[in-house]
Amino acid sequence: MTDTYKPADRTVPTRYRERAVYDRELVHSILDEAYVCHLGFIRDGAPVVLPTLFGRVDDRLYVHGSTGSRPLRMAGEVDTGLLVCLTVTHVDGLVLTRSAFHHSINYRSVVVHGTAHQVTDPEEKRSALDALVDHVIPGRSRDSRPPNNKELAATALLRLDLMDVSAKLRTGDPIEEPEDMTLPYWSGVLPLRTGYDTPIPAPGLDASIPPPEYLTAR
Amino acid sequence: MTDTYKPADRTVPTRYRERAVYDRELVHSILDEAYVCHLGFIRDGAPVVLPTLFGRVDDRLYVHGSTGSRPLRMAGEVDTGLLVCLTVTHVDGLVLTRSAFHHSINYRSVVVHGTAHQVTDPEEKRSALDALVDHVIPGRSRDSRPPNNKELAATALLRLDLMDVSAKLRTGDPIEEPEDMTLPYWSGVLPLRTGYDTPIPAPGLDASIPPPEYLTAR
Repeated sequence: MTDTYKPADRTVPTRYRERAVYDRELVHSILDEAYVCHLGFIRDGAPVVLPTLFGRVDDRLYVHGSTGSRPLRMAGEVDTGLLVCLTVTHVDGLVLTRSAFHHSINYRSVVVHGTAHQVTDPEEKRSALDALVDHVIPGRSRDSRPPNNKELAATALLRLDLMDVSAKLRTGDPIEEPEDMTLPYWSGVLPLRTGYDTPIPAPGLDASIPPPEYLTAR
Repeated sequence: MTDTYKPADRTVPTRYRERAVYDRELVHSILDEAYVCHLGFIRDGAPVVLPTLFGRVDDRLYVHGSTGSRPLRMAGEVDTGLLVCLTVTHVDGLVLTRSAFHHSINYRSVVVHGTAHQVTDPEEKRSALDALVDHVIPGRSRDSRPPNNKELAATALLRLDLMDVSAKLRTGDPIEEPEDMTLPYWSGVLPLRTGYDTPIPAPGLDASIPPPEYLTAR
């Protein structure tokens, strides 16, 4: 396995090509840090973009939903799979420049193009569902009741292989016009990060069960 | 103007209908809190989802980009506009349940369907660009150099009217099977929020210019 994804026509952006990267490890880290992706597909000739949970196993992404949900049902109806675009984005900072025009954000994003297929193999389904839970809270799937057969049957899963994929990012300082440098406006970056508040136990939780380390260590 | 958007066929979700809301004020607040949206459109018969900055003026959304960027160029080429789906999502908390199956997230999302049109009127363009800057940092457009004619000409703008729009949210405690309530696993919610680090001044910024209040008050 190589360390980079192969640039394809549609993953080479028309703008800011220098911001596009295909490094496998970087792509995985951007995906793994995201709680939700935005899944795009076509319905009745129009684009639809829905937020959804996802998981990753090596070079495969999984999204799941009820067997009644729209994209899942559509992929199941079509033998050839469902054309999708799956995108995740992190906003890392707000970039303020002296000119309104050059304002920007520091960000990391990954865009995956491909065809999603329904997963029917029970073993792949089980490991994909573990991956979905562990994607949000690493280690959690081993610390909860596994899905039973009824739950497995009620869950539809789509697989999307990471092939036509690229990351794009902006980091660092503002970029401005030389003639703006002496204007009397503040210029710089406001860094953002995800914060966590104290875990809130469910009503009636047995008081002898402490919050697990994978929550309190954040 | 009414207080709610009108439910349409495609904004009534197939799943969790009780989570869908059409309240105008709530829709606006979810949109305004987001730094980026995910814009979906169709290119060469396939869906594309790209993260992008946006702004709102009343019931109109604006996305912008270079005149060379793909969706902007596509909308300009087509007299009838570009079919899009614009989605924003906030992840407010991780919902841990005793069963792997019922894990969820608390979230707020807005999905807008419609046709985006190029903005050519210079006045609308100026006010939309102000809105884009103020969307990320309220008050900032008045505290920076306005765009000049060359910058205006280099910027393409798309307008998307808020008509076919809905919000969806999940809040509150875990929901579990009665028979799982005595399992020895922690159950509850881990609340998330966006944190801000200390603003980083640009290299060479005049030391007499303090970070503006709209940054430090966060």
